[in-house]
Amino acid sequence: MKKNDEHLVWKTVSRKWLNDFRIFNIYQVQREAANGISGTFYEVDAPNWVTIIPHITDKKLGLCFLMVRQYRHGSNTVTLEFPAGMVEKGEAAEFCAGRELLEETGYKAGYLEFIGEVSPNPAFMNNTVSTYFADGLELIREQELDKHELIDVVPVPVKEVLASMGQGEYNNGIMMISLGFYLRRMNLVNMSLDG
Amino acid sequence: MKKNDEHLVWKTVSRKWLNDFRIFNIYQVQREAANGISGTFYEVDAPNWVTIIPHITDKKLGLCFLMVRQYRHGSNTVTLEFPAGMVEKGEAAEFCAGRELLEETGYKAGYLEFIGEVSPNPAFMNNTVSTYFADGLELIREQELDKHELIDVVPVPVKEVLASMGQGEYNNGIMMISLGFYLRRMNLVNMSLDG
Repeated sequence: MKKNDEHLVWKTVSRKWLNDFRIFNIYQVQREAANGISGTFYEVDAPNWVTIIPHITDKKLGLCFLMVRQYRHGSNTVTLEFPAGMVEKGEAAEFCAGRELLEETGYKAGYLEFIGEVSPNPAFMNNTVSTYFADGLELIREQELDKHELIDVVPVPVKEVLASMGQGEYNNGIMMISLGFYLRRMNLVNMSLDG
Repeated sequence: MKKNDEHLVWKTVSRKWLNDFRIFNIYQVQREAANGISGTFYEVDAPNWVTIIPHITDKKLGLCFLMVRQYRHGSNTVTLEFPAGMVEKGEAAEFCAGRELLEETGYKAGYLEFIGEVSPNPAFMNNTVSTYFADGLELIREQELDKHELIDVVPVPVKEVLASMGQGEYNNGIMMISLGFYLRRMNLVNMSLDG
């Protein structure tokens, strides 16, 4: 926190657990600002998440992302997105990335690289989402899904995803966050904009 | 929903309101998959959100984004991000974009363009976030903030933001979603990647 941010910062007075909704908990937090105003805020306490962006070369399609199609319970839609999951207690994020890729797709990554981490929603969520680039994929077994997971695995050309992100089935905002890190990692952001 | 997605889709059996946390509500949803498995899921019911990406030309800095610095209660950090807010009941998203920009910064947009909409988190949130590009900015009044808002307004060079997104103070994932739409709108995504 920068020194000249003091007028913006709220200090935590108290924090109380309210509810457990399995994939997140809710806390009630009392805070006070430098100007004396106080307020009650609700914090979504969730484990950190990882997203994995896997390159795979398809004989017909060329350079692809290995993607997953699944029903999403918030949007009530089927999305086409990157493999992703929740970091378990005590688990390193990179280990989680390799594990989730393997469980959701059956592919083992020969190469995993951390390419960025951000708060998915700093307004009320206290966790982070990390993105890993995966390469050197090898199919080593069947999917190993949780009881409530139904996932199709699909290679999709990289260019198609970059052209369509945020549209139609590519409707997962977390995936757009990860694509932002991917674009920078691959030097695909053209910085030549001038007003 | 595509016809061949039937094996992925969960049907809603019942949906029950559980809690009101002011900026969102929690519902408990019972669902059943085509394979006969059933489960209980928690849905975060929130108003739609908008993010506004405003261009402004600064005499010293050149082409800038007009950005806001504020404390965020989820991440417990100060972030540097785009103006944003919640769409009110019955309000059009574009009207909301103009209103939030004006309230948070005092600037009126001469030009507002919708550049994308996505689910911020389809896993458990049922809302969308829309991004608007704003131009032709004119300072017409003071900020008009909610009781719990403390916001500094800062112009930041576009190139600095594109180079730093997702790092340090640029820690808001929702902002990265919006930047994805901006990069495409401005033709700043280089599609020349080949494996």
